[in-house]
Amino acid sequence: MPDASLLETFATPTDTPFIIEHIHDEFTSVCPKTGHPDFGTITIRFEPQAAKAHGTCVELKSLKLYFQSFRNEGIFYEAVTNTIRDDLAKLMKPTWLLVRSDWKGRGGFRSVIRATHGIVPESWRQ
Amino acid sequence: MPDASLLETFATPTDTPFIIEHIHDEFTSVCPKTGHPDFGTITIRFEPQAAKAHGTCVELKSLKLYFQSFRNEGIFYEAVTNTIRDDLAKLMKPTWLLVRSDWKGRGGFRSVIRATHGIVPESWRQ
Amino acid sequence: MPDASLLETFATPTDTPFIIEHIHDEFTSVCPKTGHPDFGTITIRFEPQAAKAHGTCVELKSLKLYFQSFRNEGIFYEAVTNTIRDDLAKLMKPTWLLVRSDWKGRGGFRSVIRATHGIVPESWRQ
Amino acid sequence: MPDASLLETFATPTDTPFIIEHIHDEFTSVCPKTGHPDFGTITIRFEPQAAKAHGTCVELKSLKLYFQSFRNEGIFYEAVTNTIRDDLAKLMKPTWLLVRSDWKGRGGFRSVIRATHGIVPESWRQ
Amino acid sequence: MPDASLLETFATPTDTPFIIEHIHDEFTSVCPKTGHPDFGTITIRFEPQAAKAHGTCVELKSLKLYFQSFRNEGIFYEAVTNTIRDDLAKLMKPTWLLVRSDWKGRGGFRSVIRATHGIVPESWRQ
Amino acid sequence: MPDASLLETFATPTDTPFIIEHIHDEFTSVCPKTGHPDFGTITIRFEPQAAKAHGTCVELKSLKLYFQSFRNEGIFYEAVTNTIRDDLAKLMKPTWLLVRSDWKGRGGFRSVIRATHGIVPESWRQ
Amino acid sequence: MPDASLLETFATPTDTPFIIEHIHDEFTSVCPKTGHPDFGTITIRFEPQAAKAHGTCVELKSLKLYFQSFRNEGIFYEAVTNTIRDDLAKLMKPTWLLVRSDWKGRGGFRSVIRATHGIVPESWRQ
Amino acid sequence: MPDASLLETFATPTDTPFIIEHIHDEFTSVCPKTGHPDFGTITIRFEPQAAKAHGTCVELKSLKLYFQSFRNEGIFYEAVTNTIRDDLAKLMKPTWLLVRSDWKGRGGFRSVIRATHGIVPESWRQ
Amino acid sequence: MPDASLLETFATPTDTPFIIEHIHDEFTSVCPKTGHPDFGTITIRFEPQAAKAHGTCVELKSLKLYFQSFRNEGIFYEAVTNTIRDDLAKLMKPTWLLVRSDWKGRGGFRSVIRATHGIVPESWRQ
Amino acid sequence: MPDASLLETFATPTDTPFIIEHIHDEFTSVCPKTGHPDFGTITIRFEPQAAKAHGTCVELKSLKLYFQSFRNEGIFYEAVTNTIRDDLAKLMKPTWLLVRSDWKGRGGFRSVIRATHGIVPESWRQ
Repeated sequence: MPDASLLETFATPTDTPFIIEHIHDEFTSVCPKTGHPDFGTITIRFEPQAAKAHGTCVELKSLKLYFQSFRNEGIFYEAVTNTIRDDLAKLMKPTWLLVRSDWKGRGGFRSVIRATHGIVPESWRQ
Repeated sequence: MPDASLLETFATPTDTPFIIEHIHDEFTSVCPKTGHPDFGTITIRFEPQAAKAHGTCVELKSLKLYFQSFRNEGIFYEAVTNTIRDDLAKLMKPTWLLVRSDWKGRGGFRSVIRATHGIVPESWRQ
Repeated sequence: MPDASLLETFATPTDTPFIIEHIHDEFTSVCPKTGHPDFGTITIRFEPQAAKAHGTCVELKSLKLYFQSFRNEGIFYEAVTNTIRDDLAKLMKPTWLLVRSDWKGRGGFRSVIRATHGIVPESWRQ
Repeated sequence: MPDASLLETFATPTDTPFIIEHIHDEFTSVCPKTGHPDFGTITIRFEPQAAKAHGTCVELKSLKLYFQSFRNEGIFYEAVTNTIRDDLAKLMKPTWLLVRSDWKGRGGFRSVIRATHGIVPESWRQ
Repeated sequence: MPDASLLETFATPTDTPFIIEHIHDEFTSVCPKTGHPDFGTITIRFEPQAAKAHGTCVELKSLKLYFQSFRNEGIFYEAVTNTIRDDLAKLMKPTWLLVRSDWKGRGGFRSVIRATHGIVPESWRQ
Repeated sequence: MPDASLLETFATPTDTPFIIEHIHDEFTSVCPKTGHPDFGTITIRFEPQAAKAHGTCVELKSLKLYFQSFRNEGIFYEAVTNTIRDDLAKLMKPTWLLVRSDWKGRGGFRSVIRATHGIVPESWRQ
Repeated sequence: MPDASLLETFATPTDTPFIIEHIHDEFTSVCPKTGHPDFGTITIRFEPQAAKAHGTCVELKSLKLYFQSFRNEGIFYEAVTNTIRDDLAKLMKPTWLLVRSDWKGRGGFRSVIRATHGIVPESWRQ
Repeated sequence: MPDASLLETFATPTDTPFIIEHIHDEFTSVCPKTGHPDFGTITIRFEPQAAKAHGTCVELKSLKLYFQSFRNEGIFYEAVTNTIRDDLAKLMKPTWLLVRSDWKGRGGFRSVIRATHGIVPESWRQ
Repeated sequence: MPDASLLETFATPTDTPFIIEHIHDEFTSVCPKTGHPDFGTITIRFEPQAAKAHGTCVELKSLKLYFQSFRNEGIFYEAVTNTIRDDLAKLMKPTWLLVRSDWKGRGGFRSVIRATHGIVPESWRQ
Repeated sequence: MPDASLLETFATPTDTPFIIEHIHDEFTSVCPKTGHPDFGTITIRFEPQAAKAHGTCVELKSLKLYFQSFRNEGIFYEAVTNTIRDDLAKLMKPTWLLVRSDWKGRGGFRSVIRATHGIVPESWRQ
């Protein structure tokens, strides 16, 4: 079951601007309709709050365990993407955040869902 | 025969912005001039209306059946693209919608047709 | 319906050895179980009988029409491959013949079927 | 000899905006200096005038014959590109048009020429 | 739990030789040491017994369910490969069989395990 | 018109064994049936006779002019391949020779023709 | 230990604008948590101050030695990226500077960190 | 020795806007520090002045000879790029010009230098 | 310092034949001549002795630590390859073993070294 | 001028069999006919004599200098390949040796020349 309590953070180390991107290509959950597994790549991209604003960044190992908590969950593509966006936005309160999910083909279809928090600059929307 | 009545929707699950993209690489119809089959990839990309505005999203399985209904239809590239745009725009009334069709080579030509509904932001026009 | 009577030949133009390979990446038929379309690439590779032995080669345009005759046929991967092998072996009586079908992914599976006629030399079995 | 009279059109089928792109990778002409053949890919991309404005689109088969009419013409890269732009702009009077030619390597050089008509939007200039 | 009873067969449709290959790129199990999920691609390749010898071929949908039964099993790469080889050899008694597993990188390592049954011809050992 | 008199040779420079391969990806001729241009890649691969046996090798510039002499010839794939094989075998009398032609797609088909002279060793037949 | 004193510069050779990009794909440091080595690609991209403003550019050989000084340092991805940005900004005082680090996969994750100095124009932010 | 006197021009053939790009992947010079050869790809991209403004374009064969004149010159990456920019800007006085050099790896580094003349539009800066 | 005592094994789990391949693309050591780091990919491929012959296989985590023990060692390509071959042959006494090292480019050179133990079958020598 | 005296060797470090391959993608010489530079990739592959037979291997840095000595030499493809084969065979007296040269395209042609010394095993002839 998706479990946001697994997520941990560390303090943003600087006040100068920087952007973090993590790409996880081993995401799997279960289709709630057919019971068959779904496989996808989840990309998160964000600008953390500055150190002086007590900004935080998600810790990578904890992010992995959080993603693994979806393994046997019956959940749609859109709900996966929105849940991750909501959990990470609540955790880090980043300046902006993009969550992108790319799903492996099913019946000739590939799907890509993007959900955002804050104002994502033009350069980072893809 | 293209049959928009096959299309089903589900309610947009959230009020925060997100963008959906479905890429179908098994589209086939028939050239009305030569009778030979055409093969293409259809990409649809859209921002649904928010949940509070009673927004809807097209359901993936129904979209597949809708695309399959073109299989033995004699229809030109441009008409395929515009028909899909019109049917989906009418179905979902999305904030914006792009339909892109990429057609397999014929006599040394590849063709790409893009049709839009609403104001597609710069980042999503390709 | 698969229709071998569409196939035409031309006389092998020479007695010196040569090998012909045609790769068709627009094959489509229908899954007899689910009714959904299947998509694949069909490769045929053969050494025709020599001119002095009254050898013949399949004509390319007729091969295309023959392949199109499978479009709305409910037929399994193995049957497609064996049918084509049998029809072409009967038509041309080649020294040897390989028919290979590569099928687009279904539920995480890609399949490849190879059927042969005569003794296919080591170099040409893949 | 390049022959614009080969070009035919069909009426734009709709008033909603759409963009057409044809990519032809079998273009060949002759270098007027050396007499050797040149090989290139020609891309045309345009937004036709709307149906209500009596807009037209170039017909694909006629475009192919038009391109083939350059086969034995001695003509420079720049002249090929500008000639096609002028002929198509005159034929269709599109809202905007881009003609791009990509030429195969000669002596370690590849060349790309782009010519435009009307105001090509930022997204389509490449 | 890996469950060979999920596997079903169909009768080999012909006496002429043919070779079947199924490539499944959505295999996942669990590392018994770390508890983290493993991801891999499983290839099975075999020559079925002829129809006159009452040969059988594994049915594709049942193979998918069989592979899914490893999803939450703690099992090493080598055991996955050997188990599949043993289960399929027992099920089909094929002339020959190759099972190949390609595992996604872990700590800078990718691994490939190949297990065989019967005499796999040179052309098919990779 | 294909003109073998354009071909020139130079003396094999050594008695130790070596193999020469020339790959020309700008071959074009005309389909005798439709009048449309064909485009292909021609590979020639051979082992010349040794210097002490008065062996010769085809000169590259003359080979280019010879290939250009097919530009406006109406000729089938098989005839192109066999003609080149015959002309080069007669010119150089090589220990062995392979001529391979790979043709650009037509109506969903790509074709590859291989013609040989002498005994081509296993390593060089593809 | 990261050692900025290894860095050397040369005077900007011109007053006309230019942009320098160095991509180093042999960066390695050590994870401070696990003690395992990390591997990455570091890209630096900057516009030097003009010659008349006594601008300087980092010398390539010294940059290599500086990067090698991280080899046995226990340091996180973010700290690597910010340290390099700070050291190079202090050294060259460039008009603008981007430091991008792309890290090899760990446990199914790839990470990309970007840190900037000055106003990086839109075209150069990726 | 780099020799700008080798460069020749031809008159811009039209007043309508067009953009020319030449990509040369056989550039070589010598590192003045180590004496070892450097290898790179030089891209020039420009918009010539219009015909009515007596605009000119660099002739391709002369550009090749000009680039070959760097073959045995000891010269740094930045100087190569700026020299070519200056020589071509002086020669053609184009509306705008970009010179980009991509250098083959040295000790784990690849470098890219871009120098400009005039105001290069956003679409063409990469 | 390369430390073979880090290597551990597990018992071969079966008597039926199988082949194991591990590909490690994060190998680094130091050039004894220049002091600069070298980077490479190490592939090991082997057939373990059967279970009944008390065969063993190298354990993957221990192999990783063993490879990491070369990190600061000054050692040539050939010595790396032969040392690994010798250490693994002594450890496992496999039926056959291939060690292949692919080294990143240096001064325009890439190198590949292959060392073997026992009779490596034709299919596995590359 | 090609200068074999630049070549140095080191003693083969072992009696167990191994194979060395060096791939140099920065080879350049001059066409004796046109005076234009040629660019190619030279691959050498060999099995050195065993240590007990006083075998030697070519030293990599010296091989680079030797290759650089062809830089301004007017010499044909075949002569480059045979010269390198002869020089290296004389230097090392290897069990077997393959020299392969792949030349960049000229006028639509790419060429590959292979010269051998001793009996090159089947696996290594390409």
